[in-house]
Amino acid sequence: MYAAPIQRLITELGKLPGIGNRTAQRLAFYILRASPQDATALADAIREVKERIGLCEVCFNLAEGARCRICDDTRRDPSLICVVEEAPDVMSVERTHEYGGRYHVLGGALSPIDGVDPEDLKLAQLFGRVTDPRNAIREVVLATNPTTTGEATALHIADVLRERAPDVVVTRLASGLPVGGDLEYADEVTLGKAFSGRRRL
Amino acid sequence: MYAAPIQRLITELGKLPGIGNRTAQRLAFYILRASPQDATALADAIREVKERIGLCEVCFNLAEGARCRICDDTRRDPSLICVVEEAPDVMSVERTHEYGGRYHVLGGALSPIDGVDPEDLKLAQLFGRVTDPRNAIREVVLATNPTTTGEATALHIADVLRERAPDVVVTRLASGLPVGGDLEYADEVTLGKAFSGRRRL
Repeated sequence: MYAAPIQRLITELGKLPGIGNRTAQRLAFYILRASPQDATALADAIREVKERIGLCEVCFNLAEGARCRICDDTRRDPSLICVVEEAPDVMSVERTHEYGGRYHVLGGALSPIDGVDPEDLKLAQLFGRVTDPRNAIREVVLATNPTTTGEATALHIADVLRERAPDVVVTRLASGLPVGGDLEYADEVTLGKAFSGRRRL
Repeated sequence: MYAAPIQRLITELGKLPGIGNRTAQRLAFYILRASPQDATALADAIREVKERIGLCEVCFNLAEGARCRICDDTRRDPSLICVVEEAPDVMSVERTHEYGGRYHVLGGALSPIDGVDPEDLKLAQLFGRVTDPRNAIREVVLATNPTTTGEATALHIADVLRERAPDVVVTRLASGLPVGGDLEYADEVTLGKAFSGRRRL
C-alpha cells in the first residue's frame, strides 16, 4: 500500500523490540516529516555505533577501542570483579555509585534448555582473570539476575572458583524486599528470601 | 556514562515520538546486539526514505517520483477529491475500501492560535484543482479530523468552494457513534452529533 521505501522503513523499524506495526508506521511518518539533518543523524548514529563499538578485550563490556572506560580507569579497584549477564547491567550497577571495582560481562546466563552452555558465555575468560596471579583478585561479586538462569550461573561460577581460586571471596548480591515496596504486595519467594537473609540490627 | 557513539544513538532515538530515554536505551542496546546487516538495513531504510520519498505534485500525498500511486492509477475516479490533513490519513481512508477517488493532502489543519494560516496549507492548490475545468470535479469530500481545527478547516474550504465552484458538491464525513461502541460510554458531543445526524431507516 505504501511506496516501497516507506514500507521498507516500516518493516525495519518493526523489527525493534516493543515496536509493533502501528508504532513503526508512526515512527516512519515522523522520520518522513523530520528535517533531513535529523534523519541523517539517526541513520549515522546507527551505522557509527555498529562500526565503532566492540567488546572490551578484558571484561567484554561495550567498548570504543580495545578496552572499555572502566578497565581503562586506573582509579578503579582492580582486585574486585563484579560479574553481570549483559552490558546494560554494568550501567545499572554504576548508577548505584556503590561499587568501585571492575566488571566481567558474561553475555548471558546458563540455560541448557535454551542451548546456552558454559562455553557460550565468557566463563573461561572469567576464570582466567580470577586465577591469574598478576591480577591479585580479592573478591568476585556475582551480580547475575535473581532468576532461575541467573542463580544457576552464579552457583556454577561459585563452584568452579571454590576449586580453582579458594582464596578469592565469592559474594552474591542480597535478595529481598525492594526499597519502597510494600510487604503486602511482595511475592512469597521474595519475602522468603528476605526472611532467610535477615540481618541483626 | 556510555561511550560517545552509544550516547549519540540513544539521543537520536530519543527524539522519535513516544520514545523516552529508557526505551531509547533499550533500542540502542538491541541495535548493538543486532547483526551488522540488520543495523545497516535500518540505517539504509532511513536514508532511502528521505532521499526517495517526496510529495506528489498533484495531491501532496507521499510519492516516490513526481506523482503518488493513487494519482497515477487511472482506474480511480478523477472527478472525486477527498481532502485529508496528513498523509497517514490517506492510508486510513484506503483501508476502508469505501472510496475510489483521488485525494488532496493539506499538510495540517487551520489553527491561527498555533500560527497555521490558510497559506501554510495546500489550500490554493486544492482550489486550483477543483476549479480547473479540465479536471471536471463533481464532489469534494472533506475528511479532515472531527476536531476543532479539522472542523474549522472543513468549514473554510466549504465556504470558499461554495463561492468559486458552486456546481461542485461538497460533503463532510458523518460524525456519530463509533461502530462497536457503547451508548453508555459515548461522550455527550459525539452522542449529540449522532442525534443531529440521525437518518430514516
